[in-house]
Amino acid sequence: MTQRKSFGSDNHAGVHPAVLQAIVDANPGDAVAYGADEWSKRTTAGLRETFGADDAFLVLNGSGANVLGLSLLLRRHEAVICAESAHIYTDECGAPERLLGTKLLAVPSPDGKITPELIAEQLSGRGDDHRSQPGVVAVTQSTELGTCYTLAELRKITDFCRASDLRVFLDGARLANAAASLDCSLAELAECADVLSFGGTKNGAMVAEALIVMRSGLAENGPYLRKQQTQLASKLRFVAAQFDALLHDDLWRANATHANAMARRLADGVAGIAGVDIVYPVQANAVFARLHPRHITALQQEWSFGMWDEHDSVVRWMAAFDTPEADVDAFASAIRATVSA
Amino acid sequence: MTQRKSFGSDNHAGVHPAVLQAIVDANPGDAVAYGADEWSKRTTAGLRETFGADDAFLVLNGSGANVLGLSLLLRRHEAVICAESAHIYTDECGAPERLLGTKLLAVPSPDGKITPELIAEQLSGRGDDHRSQPGVVAVTQSTELGTCYTLAELRKITDFCRASDLRVFLDGARLANAAASLDCSLAELAECADVLSFGGTKNGAMVAEALIVMRSGLAENGPYLRKQQTQLASKLRFVAAQFDALLHDDLWRANATHANAMARRLADGVAGIAGVDIVYPVQANAVFARLHPRHITALQQEWSFGMWDEHDSVVRWMAAFDTPEADVDAFASAIRATVSA
Amino acid sequence: MTQRKSFGSDNHAGVHPAVLQAIVDANPGDAVAYGADEWSKRTTAGLRETFGADDAFLVLNGSGANVLGLSLLLRRHEAVICAESAHIYTDECGAPERLLGTKLLAVPSPDGKITPELIAEQLSGRGDDHRSQPGVVAVTQSTELGTCYTLAELRKITDFCRASDLRVFLDGARLANAAASLDCSLAELAECADVLSFGGTKNGAMVAEALIVMRSGLAENGPYLRKQQTQLASKLRFVAAQFDALLHDDLWRANATHANAMARRLADGVAGIAGVDIVYPVQANAVFARLHPRHITALQQEWSFGMWDEHDSVVRWMAAFDTPEADVDAFASAIRATVSA
Amino acid sequence: MTQRKSFGSDNHAGVHPAVLQAIVDANPGDAVAYGADEWSKRTTAGLRETFGADDAFLVLNGSGANVLGLSLLLRRHEAVICAESAHIYTDECGAPERLLGTKLLAVPSPDGKITPELIAEQLSGRGDDHRSQPGVVAVTQSTELGTCYTLAELRKITDFCRASDLRVFLDGARLANAAASLDCSLAELAECADVLSFGGTKNGAMVAEALIVMRSGLAENGPYLRKQQTQLASKLRFVAAQFDALLHDDLWRANATHANAMARRLADGVAGIAGVDIVYPVQANAVFARLHPRHITALQQEWSFGMWDEHDSVVRWMAAFDTPEADVDAFASAIRATVSA
Repeated sequence: MTQRKSFGSDNHAGVHPAVLQAIVDANPGDAVAYGADEWSKRTTAGLRETFGADDAFLVLNGSGANVLGLSLLLRRHEAVICAESAHIYTDECGAPERLLGTKLLAVPSPDGKITPELIAEQLSGRGDDHRSQPGVVAVTQSTELGTCYTLAELRKITDFCRASDLRVFLDGARLANAAASLDCSLAELAECADVLSFGGTKNGAMVAEALIVMRSGLAENGPYLRKQQTQLASKLRFVAAQFDALLHDDLWRANATHANAMARRLADGVAGIAGVDIVYPVQANAVFARLHPRHITALQQEWSFGMWDEHDSVVRWMAAFDTPEADVDAFASAIRATVSA
Repeated sequence: MTQRKSFGSDNHAGVHPAVLQAIVDANPGDAVAYGADEWSKRTTAGLRETFGADDAFLVLNGSGANVLGLSLLLRRHEAVICAESAHIYTDECGAPERLLGTKLLAVPSPDGKITPELIAEQLSGRGDDHRSQPGVVAVTQSTELGTCYTLAELRKITDFCRASDLRVFLDGARLANAAASLDCSLAELAECADVLSFGGTKNGAMVAEALIVMRSGLAENGPYLRKQQTQLASKLRFVAAQFDALLHDDLWRANATHANAMARRLADGVAGIAGVDIVYPVQANAVFARLHPRHITALQQEWSFGMWDEHDSVVRWMAAFDTPEADVDAFASAIRATVSA
Repeated sequence: MTQRKSFGSDNHAGVHPAVLQAIVDANPGDAVAYGADEWSKRTTAGLRETFGADDAFLVLNGSGANVLGLSLLLRRHEAVICAESAHIYTDECGAPERLLGTKLLAVPSPDGKITPELIAEQLSGRGDDHRSQPGVVAVTQSTELGTCYTLAELRKITDFCRASDLRVFLDGARLANAAASLDCSLAELAECADVLSFGGTKNGAMVAEALIVMRSGLAENGPYLRKQQTQLASKLRFVAAQFDALLHDDLWRANATHANAMARRLADGVAGIAGVDIVYPVQANAVFARLHPRHITALQQEWSFGMWDEHDSVVRWMAAFDTPEADVDAFASAIRATVSA
Repeated sequence: MTQRKSFGSDNHAGVHPAVLQAIVDANPGDAVAYGADEWSKRTTAGLRETFGADDAFLVLNGSGANVLGLSLLLRRHEAVICAESAHIYTDECGAPERLLGTKLLAVPSPDGKITPELIAEQLSGRGDDHRSQPGVVAVTQSTELGTCYTLAELRKITDFCRASDLRVFLDGARLANAAASLDCSLAELAECADVLSFGGTKNGAMVAEALIVMRSGLAENGPYLRKQQTQLASKLRFVAAQFDALLHDDLWRANATHANAMARRLADGVAGIAGVDIVYPVQANAVFARLHPRHITALQQEWSFGMWDEHDSVVRWMAAFDTPEADVDAFASAIRATVSA
């Protein structure tokens, strides 16, 4: 049996060849550590330019970027509003609470997106010293449910937050997929946030995330907080090199566009199969589908993907920068065959 | 002018070719994320075997390993005893205090080593609820001052700690250099600790550290703490592959032995020069020397190295796995020429 | 206009005369500070005996008792399961998250009580290092909604937790009211918890809460954690004296019984009024009622009480140890008159 | 044997009769909780006026005031500079580290006082993200060694700090003693700080400390931080009443003046005894003396006081607001008799 592409996660993929080459190319010779090297300076400048940002910090993973980003925005006593499906709420083992001491106020959101209305409901206790005081709204783009906020939706959130003494953090672990999906620039997305992360790893990097700071004054404490939060690599040139490769000729967009297209292709491939319900709009590189548990078990014999919601019998299929069309088609056929059997 | 080897730090070096090759070799195909892949399993098993350990955790950097290690050992209210020169005390921007809320009780130590006597002095407030209660002793091997504890010295600390309800954490960012220096196994060093870190990055890796847990029961909460502390990489196979290369045929020892030898060669090369005082025994890959500030400035025109103690006019020269003999000799000559001029 | 009794909170009341006298009586002469005095020793022993406890700690307020109690029970990485209406979740400005770094997993509960079934739903991510790991279940007795768990209900929770590696913390800010309501001993309630608080302030004290530790081994770090969490009073004899008075001849029970009876009397007094719906069973010293917003506003002109849920137009009426029957009757009449007008 | 006055601590004393009466007087009737009552408003206004302050917060104890005060001044990543003898460094079981995650950089100071020169030495790592970044200087007035900064000394520190982006926190657990000693107003002392505590408990209160915020903008988050840090009493009127009594007719100054005079009288009484060395200037209500250990043991048979430094055989004798002249004289005679025997 040939090995089939995993649909389990976009981080099951390896590293894009150009990223790997950039790492190899960065190796010869010495470089000062902790970010004073040429790669780090150049890449940081490149990120600043790409995003129209005030500053950028290279970090090691998504949880690290999220915690660092929140810590730049939160006053000491404040809480965070986020969707119930937010990665910071459900998938980081409580890292923000543990490392920052902040409470996360999770709002139910059927499609992973929050709205000014949902945010407003969390503000009733403002000024009451018994209630947690929200200071930051965290949105994810594209969301954990494979949906994308439109630019208009994001701007409505930003406007509401700016009028309400709330800062906006954007978890951009899959920001590239959103930019590709919306056919917009990273800068257009970034304008909607005060601080955001830009995920490299799921886009074809090995171990590389960036934190982008949009507003002047917010980045000042970033170097110390990054170090305290153990997110500063010593041989930082190798993290920088990865982003260098992704930024070069907009490789990040090509990677994301392909992944999105493969998710779309899979969704289209299973459309109309009785017994397969696509449960969220497919707007990035994820497909969420409800199947009979028996069909899920059968498919997992040969294909790698994960259960998303056991109670609801919903699975998640992810496409990556390197997902082959042929595997998508074979997987779609397998689904059809299994469910129709 | 040809580029000269940096003597500024062992993390100015790039990655050892075998480590880089291991990364390249790990790339093809998918692998499950977050440590359930074959590389991570194999490397973790290899670390367990090498150290005679109960468990091992792959992490991203030294501060991360230190914080995670301390968090496995500290009761919620406890403090840490360490040398005033300890990396956790002086070089991590206060990460242990910030992330763990623990107080560090720093003891002066002329050579970077602490002793049972120095530890005992910190125990006078035990049982008094106004005083910080030490629960962990943190030692560094080799130390930040380039010295090595002998096995006998370490065992005296361990014996004292075990008799005193203190646990031992060993910061092994340069453990390989110590094992090479003492010509002992990693397991012999590890036996002296309850939990220790094993540094890959300074030994020729790119971004790879390991936390080694020696005693049963201590590792249980490790996976959750690693995730909360943002030290879990998603594409963990690439961290694992680096250690795989270092463990293969004891590459770690060869790398450390070379670095130590180059430091020794440099120290020997400047021995006897009036105006150059070696201030600590050269027992690993570092040479600390006192020179006239004017000579330091002159040398830094052409050579890369850092000031260690400005008040005392002491500099630090570090050797790495890839430091060429020729550069050591040229540097020694330059020192001699500058100081004798 | 004579001043009318507040129905706003049981902490709007002053101090019971016997408690005040105990404070006055404790004043003459010196006493060693921080708990080594005779009052503190005697009261701590009295609490141990009353609760059948391993140890007891005198603290300063309810949030302090809750945070200290949780900190004795939680492993470093663990989360807390509690009801959505729990004081620790909604009324302490996020103190547990801030001071302990723990995540609170709040479960919806229509009557303020949680059940083994609700707890079980929070355990699906156990063993997955991405998910928060519950370690403690926090229950409140009597609940924030004026209801009481029966002993059988509490024991079911305890049994479930003991079988599930979960520890039980009981927020007993109004434990006296529960014991009075159930006509049981404090020890019978305490048996259902590993650690619990015992509220003095709402029961007639001035500034006095106790933390009761039921199981051997859990209290060991209590003195240090109490001090670190700034809950140790220097002149502790005055906190001890307050509990001394409450424990003497079971004054706590008399106070709670009276408060409960006044809540009952008020509930009975408004029963059957069209336009007044009692929304939770009245099992302690609180009455929650739904009235038309217009009636609420009218009543608040002359009577002191608070809105509980603005969306649902529900108010809270609390009785205290010193609530006079006459005021209850006058208030009930006023409600009837206002609503029927 | 008549009971003799304790010289062990100023918190071995009971409560001043006027404070106790104020508590009793505050009892009748209801009052809203958590600071919205008339006592709390009036006392807070009184503290603002007395100190020329922007705002004031009533809290429960000295550690609570210290932690709250630091939290108003520290940026999230910053460290605190303090004397090695500072209460926050040695006597709070590590509360600032635990609750705020801040590192304390302790500087040796022979008389408990720090200077701009000592502060400056801690600033060498500024801007280096590996080093802890000092943001606050904490001074204690009067110091833990019974000395007082002159106003000129304090102003030099303030000037240095204001020029160096450092904020000043003043631990005023015994501020009254300093004001009495220097014959200055509380406002004159307060001007030298950004935030300070004002100790009530050691001055004759039962359980009452105040946090005074001098600069506009710093108090904004105080209510939330006080609540999160569990320093908000529900029946706050009783804390307020205590300060009301101390502020009335400057009772605080009379109390402090008496305590200082008794320390002075004791120091004078033992002056010139061979075998009794006063080791610090007696400038407040404490006398530190070196005696032979044998004499210490003998004296402690009949008199209550504590060892300060066992290695150096130094004891601490504290006077309080209620220390009788006769007991001071008897104690001085006992010392003379014991040491001369």
